Amino acid sequence: MEQSDSPRLIDKTLGNIRRAWKDLTGAARVKFTGTVRADLPEDDWEVLKRQINACLEGRGGQVSARARAADLGRTYLSLNADGRRRFLALLAHDYAVNKETLATAVATWTDLMQSPKAELSEFDALYRAALAALRDALSPPRVRLLAQFNTLPEGVKFLVDMRAELIMLARKDSALKGLDDDLKSLLASWFDIGFLDLRCITWDAPASLLEKLARYEAVHVVKSWSDIKNRLAPDRRCYAFFHPQMPDEPIIYVWVALVKGMAANVQALLDVNAPTGDPDEADSAIFYSISNAQAGLAGVSFGSFLIKRVVDALESDFKNLKTFATLSPIPGFCAWLEQRINEEGMDLLLPSERRELLAAVDDEGDVLKAFQDARIWYREPSIENSVRESLMRLCAHYLMEAKQGQYARDRVAHFHLSNGARMERINWRGDVSQKGLSQSAGMMINYLYKSGDIERNHEAYTGDGKIRASGSFKALLKS
Amino acid sequence: MEQSDSPRLIDKTLGNIRRAWKDLTGAARVKFTGTVRADLPEDDWEVLKRQINACLEGRGGQVSARARAADLGRTYLSLNADGRRRFLALLAHDYAVNKETLATAVATWTDLMQSPKAELSEFDALYRAALAALRDALSPPRVRLLAQFNTLPEGVKFLVDMRAELIMLARKDSALKGLDDDLKSLLASWFDIGFLDLRCITWDAPASLLEKLARYEAVHVVKSWSDIKNRLAPDRRCYAFFHPQMPDEPIIYVWVALVKGMAANVQALLDVNAPTGDPDEADSAIFYSISNAQAGLAGVSFGSFLIKRVVDALESDFKNLKTFATLSPIPGFCAWLEQRINEEGMDLLLPSERRELLAAVDDEGDVLKAFQDARIWYREPSIENSVRESLMRLCAHYLMEAKQGQYARDRVAHFHLSNGARMERINWRGDVSQKGLSQSAGMMINYLYKSGDIERNHEAYTGDGKIRASGSFKALLKS
Amino acid sequence: MEQSDSPRLIDKTLGNIRRAWKDLTGAARVKFTGTVRADLPEDDWEVLKRQINACLEGRGGQVSARARAADLGRTYLSLNADGRRRFLALLAHDYAVNKETLATAVATWTDLMQSPKAELSEFDALYRAALAALRDALSPPRVRLLAQFNTLPEGVKFLVDMRAELIMLARKDSALKGLDDDLKSLLASWFDIGFLDLRCITWDAPASLLEKLARYEAVHVVKSWSDIKNRLAPDRRCYAFFHPQMPDEPIIYVWVALVKGMAANVQALLDVNAPTGDPDEADSAIFYSISNAQAGLAGVSFGSFLIKRVVDALESDFKNLKTFATLSPIPGFCAWLEQRINEEGMDLLLPSERRELLAAVDDEGDVLKAFQDARIWYREPSIENSVRESLMRLCAHYLMEAKQGQYARDRVAHFHLSNGARMERINWRGDVSQKGLSQSAGMMINYLYKSGDIERNHEAYTGDGKIRASGSFKALLKS
Amino acid sequence: MEQSDSPRLIDKTLGNIRRAWKDLTGAARVKFTGTVRADLPEDDWEVLKRQINACLEGRGGQVSARARAADLGRTYLSLNADGRRRFLALLAHDYAVNKETLATAVATWTDLMQSPKAELSEFDALYRAALAALRDALSPPRVRLLAQFNTLPEGVKFLVDMRAELIMLARKDSALKGLDDDLKSLLASWFDIGFLDLRCITWDAPASLLEKLARYEAVHVVKSWSDIKNRLAPDRRCYAFFHPQMPDEPIIYVWVALVKGMAANVQALLDVNAPTGDPDEADSAIFYSISNAQAGLAGVSFGSFLIKRVVDALESDFKNLKTFATLSPIPGFCAWLEQRINEEGMDLLLPSERRELLAAVDDEGDVLKAFQDARIWYREPSIENSVRESLMRLCAHYLMEAKQGQYARDRVAHFHLSNGARMERINWRGDVSQKGLSQSAGMMINYLYKSGDIERNHEAYTGDGKIRASGSFKALLKS
Repeated sequence: MEQSDSPRLIDKTLGNIRRAWKDLTGAARVKFTGTVRADLPEDDWEVLKRQINACLEGRGGQVSARARAADLGRTYLSLNADGRRRFLALLAHDYAVNKETLATAVATWTDLMQSPKAELSEFDALYRAALAALRDALSPPRVRLLAQFNTLPEGVKFLVDMRAELIMLARKDSALKGLDDDLKSLLASWFDIGFLDLRCITWDAPASLLEKLARYEAVHVVKSWSDIKNRLAPDRRCYAFFHPQMPDEPIIYVWVALVKGMAANVQALLDVNAPTGDPDEADSAIFYSISNAQAGLAGVSFGSFLIKRVVDALESDFKNLKTFATLSPIPGFCAWLEQRINEEGMDLLLPSERRELLAAVDDEGDVLKAFQDARIWYREPSIENSVRESLMRLCAHYLMEAKQGQYARDRVAHFHLSNGARMERINWRGDVSQKGLSQSAGMMINYLYKSGDIERNHEAYTGDGKIRASGSFKALLKS
Repeated sequence: MEQSDSPRLIDKTLGNIRRAWKDLTGAARVKFTGTVRADLPEDDWEVLKRQINACLEGRGGQVSARARAADLGRTYLSLNADGRRRFLALLAHDYAVNKETLATAVATWTDLMQSPKAELSEFDALYRAALAALRDALSPPRVRLLAQFNTLPEGVKFLVDMRAELIMLARKDSALKGLDDDLKSLLASWFDIGFLDLRCITWDAPASLLEKLARYEAVHVVKSWSDIKNRLAPDRRCYAFFHPQMPDEPIIYVWVALVKGMAANVQALLDVNAPTGDPDEADSAIFYSISNAQAGLAGVSFGSFLIKRVVDALESDFKNLKTFATLSPIPGFCAWLEQRINEEGMDLLLPSERRELLAAVDDEGDVLKAFQDARIWYREPSIENSVRESLMRLCAHYLMEAKQGQYARDRVAHFHLSNGARMERINWRGDVSQKGLSQSAGMMINYLYKSGDIERNHEAYTGDGKIRASGSFKALLKS
Repeated sequence: MEQSDSPRLIDKTLGNIRRAWKDLTGAARVKFTGTVRADLPEDDWEVLKRQINACLEGRGGQVSARARAADLGRTYLSLNADGRRRFLALLAHDYAVNKETLATAVATWTDLMQSPKAELSEFDALYRAALAALRDALSPPRVRLLAQFNTLPEGVKFLVDMRAELIMLARKDSALKGLDDDLKSLLASWFDIGFLDLRCITWDAPASLLEKLARYEAVHVVKSWSDIKNRLAPDRRCYAFFHPQMPDEPIIYVWVALVKGMAANVQALLDVNAPTGDPDEADSAIFYSISNAQAGLAGVSFGSFLIKRVVDALESDFKNLKTFATLSPIPGFCAWLEQRINEEGMDLLLPSERRELLAAVDDEGDVLKAFQDARIWYREPSIENSVRESLMRLCAHYLMEAKQGQYARDRVAHFHLSNGARMERINWRGDVSQKGLSQSAGMMINYLYKSGDIERNHEAYTGDGKIRASGSFKALLKS
Repeated sequence: MEQSDSPRLIDKTLGNIRRAWKDLTGAARVKFTGTVRADLPEDDWEVLKRQINACLEGRGGQVSARARAADLGRTYLSLNADGRRRFLALLAHDYAVNKETLATAVATWTDLMQSPKAELSEFDALYRAALAALRDALSPPRVRLLAQFNTLPEGVKFLVDMRAELIMLARKDSALKGLDDDLKSLLASWFDIGFLDLRCITWDAPASLLEKLARYEAVHVVKSWSDIKNRLAPDRRCYAFFHPQMPDEPIIYVWVALVKGMAANVQALLDVNAPTGDPDEADSAIFYSISNAQAGLAGVSFGSFLIKRVVDALESDFKNLKTFATLSPIPGFCAWLEQRINEEGMDLLLPSERRELLAAVDDEGDVLKAFQDARIWYREPSIENSVRESLMRLCAHYLMEAKQGQYARDRVAHFHLSNGARMERINWRGDVSQKGLSQSAGMMINYLYKSGDIERNHEAYTGDGKIRASGSFKALLKS
C-alpha cells in the first residue's frame, strides 16, 4: 500500500502517548528525580533507579503514582535503541524475584508443613499466610512497576509495544527471558479472552483502523486502498478482536469471503474486477487470512476463539451458509521438500525420465534451480501436467505426515487442526503470487470447520496427534 | 486519487437504497400497477401515471403509502437516461399546479376582498379559508408526491441526486424549470440550517466518508490517501455539515490549516513532507478550501453559516488563535485579463519595451501565447520580475473593481465579501499548480474574517456593494 | 406520581433554553433594541416591533440572525401571561399576509392568464415568476420569523410550547386563529413522519424521559415509579417517536403488553403484583394506551404510523405473536347515554319493572343518580347482573351507530377505525377505576389490527364510514 | 425509597444472566453431566465434581469451555442457601492448592539453589522453569475455574455477587477464608484502577442505574425519586466508577454539592425545597457521601482514586472552585463516648453541678439514658448550650487521639486522612437525623482536600500516623 511515513503522517498513538503523559506529569505536584541521556550510559543508572524506586514506593497515593509512572514512561520513550536495551536489562537484573525473600517464604512454608500445629484453625491461618508470602515473593517488583502503566492513557499499548522490542532483544540476550516471562504473563492476564470485543469491520470503519489492518496483514499483502475496499465489499467480511484498554488497536483479525462453493484460488477472491456476489445467496464462508496485529502479544493466543465467534456471528446473520472453511497457505512445504530432495534426490519429485522437460526449460538445465523458481512449472502446460500430480501427493504427505513431536509440522496446519478443523482439499494454482509459488509451489489448502465434528477433531488431534481429513484428501496420499 | 470504480466498488448508497426499497415493497400488502421499460416509451406512460396516482391517493394509510413510494422510486432507478428524462418531463407537465383550481381560489379570494362581510368573525373564517385554498392550489401534486420519499430510507439522498440530474436536464429543456423550482423549494425547507450538524472530521472518520471528501473536493484535487491523511494531520482540521436524514453524506465542508502567520502558498500547506506544527501554538486559522458535496443542493446555501460555526468551534478549542483568514483562488482573473487584453491590447499588461523578454522566451515570439501558458513567466527570474508588479496590480483591480451589477465579478470574492470578510493580501506564487497558473497566474488571495468587523463589512457589501480591503491591498491599486 | 415541582426540580429544558440563549446573545456582536415589561403594555409595542423587524431584515448574515432570534425568544420568556397574549396578538395583526402584496400578485397572475404571451418560453418564465410571487405573498413575515427559531438550541421545543399556549388563547380570541394556522403548518412541515425515529423505551432509559412519559400519560395515570417500572417489565413494551431537533422529548408513545390471549381488563395488566410472563411465549400484543406528549402538536397526526411501525417491530422480535389488538377506553359512552336517557327516558336502559333494584340501592331512590355514580352497579351482584346485558348492548350501539357526520362519534373508535382496525370485543369490568366507571360504566373495548384486513378496513371506513366488527360484536347489537 | 420488590420488578441482571447462560448452553454441542438438587446433598457431590472437572479439563477448546462454565453457573444459581454453602465448601476443600505439587516445586527450587549449575545460561533456564513451577503450584484449580466466568455475559458480576455471599459465610466458617483469599485476589486483578471509567451521572442517566444508586447509598438514605432528582440538580454532581465488564453496575460513587462556603449541615444540602444555586458561581465542592456499591468487592479499594479523579474533573469544569472538602459523618463517636463514660463516669461529659438540667428533662432523671437518646439535648436551648462545648471538645479528642494502632480509630477519619485530607471543622447540628444523633450526637466534620498538601499529609499519616488539622480544630482540643 502507498507509503504514509512522512514526518507529517507519524503514528498518532505515539503522539497521543507523549501528549497525554506530558499533561499528566505537568499537572502533578510530585518531585521528579532528574533525566537521563538517550543511550542511558552507566553513569545515569542511579538516576533511573531512583525514578523506578519512587514508583515502587508509591508515596502520595495513586494519583501521584500515575504521574511517576507517566514520567518513567516518558524516560523510556526518550531513549534510543541502546538506551532501551540497557533500561530493560536493568529491570531484568535489579528488579527480579528476590531470592532471599523467596528463600524465607519457602522456609516458612516448609517448617509449617513439617510441624503442623495441633489447633486446626490456627494452622489454617498460618497456612494462608504462608501461601500469601510465597505468592508475594514470586511477584517481582518489575511486575508491580509495569502493572502501574495500565492506569495511564495508552499505557497498555505502551507495554505491548515494549514487549515487542523485548522479544527481539531476548533472542540475543537470554538474560532478558525472565523479564519477558513476567511481562507476557502480565499481558496474558489483562488480555483474557473474556475482555475482548468482537467487531465487524466495514468500509465505514475509521480510515486509521483500516490503515492498521493493511499494515499488519500477514498473509496476503494489501496493495492499495482499492484492494482494502474490495476486501470489505458486500460479499466480504472482516472481524477483529479489540480490548477496552486499546480501543483503536485490532488485536487479531480475520478476512472472510461469502461465496458459492468452496473457494479454490485466492487471486480470484482478491480480484478487484470480479463481480460482487449477493451475500444472502452464499453457501460458503471462506476464511482466507488471519493475522495477529500485535507483535507484543506473541504467545498469547486468541485465534481459535476468534474463528468460532465469527462462525457464530455469520451463522446468525446468513441463514444459507452451510460450509465454513479456510483457504490457507502451506508456508513450510517448499522448504521441507527442498530438504527432502537434498537428502533423497530428485526421484522423490519426478523419475529421471520425466525430468527432461524441466531441464529443457532452464537455460542451464538445472532442475533444482527450476524447482527453486517455481514459476518455471507454470510456463508450459506440458511441464505443469508433468509435476502436478506428484507435487500434490507430496504436499498431502507433508501436511499429514511431516511432524514436530506428535503434531503437524506446518504451523498453519497445526493451528487449524488444534482448533478442530479437518484437511479438506488441496488446490492446485491456489496462490500464484511470488510468495505462494515460492512457499508452496502455488498450492493452497482448505481446512473445513464442521460444527458437529469440531470438538471430536480437536480432541483427537490435541490428545493423540491424530489428523482428520476428507476422503479425497486421503486418496491423494495413496496415488 | 486512485480509482475505485470497478464493479465491486460501486457506491454503497445506491446498493442500500435498492435493498431497502425492495424489502419495503416486498413486505407490503398493497397491489402494484405493473412495470415499465427502461427508456419509458410513450406506451408505458399510462402505467406510470397509474403508479403516481396511486401514490397521490394515499389509499390504506401511511404504511401503504411508503410501500407505493418505494415502488415508484424503484421504477425510477430502473430507468436509463432517456427514461429518466421522460419520467421528469411527465412530472413537469402532468403534475404541476392546476390552473383551474388556482383560478377558482383566486376568484374566491378576489370576491371576498371586494365585498367584505359585515360580521368580522365570519369574515375572518372566510379569509383564513381563502388563504388556505390559495396555498393548496399553489402546492402542486408533484410536491406532495416527492415529499413522500422522505419517509423512505435514503429517500432524501434519492431526491437530492434526482435534482442533480434534473438541473443538468433543465439547462437544455426549460420546460423542466418549474419542476426544479418545486424540488429546490422542497429541499430548501428540509435542509434548513437549523437541522444541520457540524462535525469535525479526523483520520479516525469512516474511510467511506473520507473517500467522499476526496471525490467532492472542488478546489485542490486530492491526489492520494496520503494526501488526505496529511490534510487531517494534528495541525489541520476539516469540518462538515451533515443532515440527520443523510447521516453518511457531507453537505458542505471546509479544510483549515492551523499555522503561524497568514499562509501565502497552498502547495506549502499541502506538502506531505513538511513538519507538523503544534496546533496549540498556532496563531492563525487558514481556510484553504470549501466545497459543496451535493450537486442536487445547488442554490441552497450553507457556506456562510459553516465558516462562522467553524470559527466559533476553533476559538473555543484553541485560545491562541488570533487570525481567521482564507487562502483562496481567484478563479476568474486570467479569463477576465485575456478579454481585457483582447480589447485594450498588451500595453495593459506591459509596455511594449518590456515585452521583449517574454517574446524571447516563446519560440514563436508570441506574447499572447506566453500569457496563456502562465508557466512561462516563472521559467526565468528576469521575466518573473518584469511581470510581477503589473500582474498583482491588475489582479487587485480585477478583484476590487470588476463588477457584476454592484457586486464583485469573481465568484469566490463575492462569496467571502457577502459573508463579511475583507480583502487582505494577494500572494504571488500562491498556487503554482497547472490550475492555479491558468486561472490566476499563480496568485492567491487571503480574505480576512475579523470578528468585530464582519457584520459591518457584510452590510456595506450587501447593501451598497462596497468592498473593504486592507491598506496594503488598496496600495496595490495605486501603484 | 409523587410531585417533583419544588423550585429545585424545575424543568431542565426551560433552564437549558435560558442558558443557551443567554450565551448566544452574549457572544453576538449585534446591537439589541431594548427590553420590554413583563405584561407588555402598549407603550412597549414599538420596542418589540423594532426587535421583530430587526430579525426579519436579517442584517449581518445568519449568525447575527440567530443571536437576534435568541434575544427575541428571551423577550418572550420574560413575559407573563398577559404579556404573552399581547405578543401573540401583535404577531397575529401586524405580521400576517400583506393584503396589498397579495392583491398585486393575484393581479399579475390574472393578467398573465388572460393574455398569454405568444412566445412559449417567455410565457413559461413569466408564469414561474407569477407563481413564485403568489407563494411569497402567501408566506407571511411571522412564518419567516418563527422559522428562525429552528436554528436555536431547543428552538423547536420552544415553538411547540408556544403553540400550546396559542391554542388555549385562540379558543377565546378567534383573531389568533390565523396565526395558529401558520404555526401549525410550519410545525407540520418540520414534524413530517419521515423525520421521526422510533425508539423502544426500557427501564434503562433516562429517568428524565420516564418522568415525562409519566407526566404526559393521558389514558391510565402513572401512580409511582414502581408503576412505571412495572409497565417496562420484560413482558411489557413502550415505543415512542422522537424528532432529531427535540431528542429528549417524546412526541407520541404507546404502551404494549405481551400476553397470552386478548387482554380484557386493564387493572390486571397494570397489577404490580402479577407474575411476569415470558415475552417469547406471548401470542398477543395488546396496545393499552397511546398518548400524545406535545400539546403544541395538536392536529399534527402520527398515531396511525406509530401503531404500524410498532407492529412491524414486534413482529420481527417475537415470532409467536399472532394477535395485535388494543384494550381501549370508550370515553364518550356515559355522556352519550345520559343524554339519550334524558331524551328518551330510563326505559332505554332498563324496563321500569327491573329498576327497583337500583332504586333500592340509592338512599334517595334516585335511579339517575345511581346511573351517574356507576360504582353503584358493582356493589351487588344482583344489580350488576340486571344491567350488564343492556349496558353492553347500548355500548355496542353507541360505538357502531352513534355518528358524527359519517364517522364514529367516539373519538378513540374513530382513531382506530381510521387506522384500519375492527371492533372485536366489549369487556365488562374492563376498567373499574373511577375514570373508567364514570366514562364507560367500567367497560373497555378491543380493537383488532389484522394485517391482511387493515387496508380494506381503512378504505371502507374512510371512504364510506363503514365500520367492521367481529361476529360476536355484531351479535351484541341484535340481542 | 418506595419498594420495588414485587415479583414483576425483580432484578434485571439475574434475569439476563439466566437467559444468556441458557442460550449459551443451548447452542453448545457439548455433553453435560447431569443436574443436582437445590440443597446439594452429599449424594450429588460426585455429579458436581464431574461438572467442575470437565470445566478444568477444557476439552474442545474455548467455546466448549464457555458452555461448560455457563452450565456450572446455572447449577450454582439453581441452588438454595444450603446448596450454595456446600458448593463453596467443595471449592474450598477439593480445589485448593495441591500440597504435594507445591512440595515438589519447592523441592526443585531448593535443590537448584543449593547446587547451582556451572553453566550460567543453563542455570537461567532451570531457574525460570523452577519459578514457573512454583507459580503454577500456587495457582489453585479453583482460580482457573472461576476465571473462566469472565468470558460469560455478566460473568464478572456473577463472581462479585458470589463473593458477597462467600464473605458472609466465611465469617462463620473459617475454612472458606482461603477460597475468599483467592477470589478476592482474582477480582482485585480484574478491577485494577486502570480499567475503571469515571462517569458523571445526571437525571438523564438510566432509571435502572439511579435505582441502584438509591439502593446502595450507605451514608444518607435516599427517600424518594424526588430526593434523588434533587441530588442531581444543576448545583449537585454524582460521579461513579464503572468497569467495562459490568457496564450497568456502579462500583463506587460520590455525591458532591457545589455551594458557596464550606457546607455545615447535611439536611440543608438535601433539602428539596431549597433554592438551586448557579454551579458556575460556587466556590466550594462538598463531598457529602461516598458509597461502595458492590459488597463482593470488599477489600478492593478505589475510594482514594475516585476522590482525586473527581477533584480533577470538577477543577476543569468549574474555574471558580477553590475549596474541596467533605461533609462527613463521625460514625464511631457516640459508641466510643459511651464506653469512656462507662469507664470514667459522667464527669467526663459534664461536671455534676451542670447535669441537673439534663436530669430534669428525662422523666426518670437518668442522665445516661438522656445521653443515649441524643435528641433530648436539642429539646431545650438551655440544655443544648450546656453540652455543646464539651461534646465538641470530646469529639475533636476522639477524632485526633483515639487510635487503632497508630491510625485514627474512626473509620471515616482513617479513610480521608489516608487520602491526604486534613481535619478542618466540626459542625454542631450538622446531621440531626436519627442516625446522625445516635452516631455522633448530631455533629459532622469537614475534611479538607488542599491540593498542595495532599501528598505531604498522606505521607505524614501513613508513615507516622500524624494527623493534620486546621488551627481552629486544634484549638478545640485545648478548650
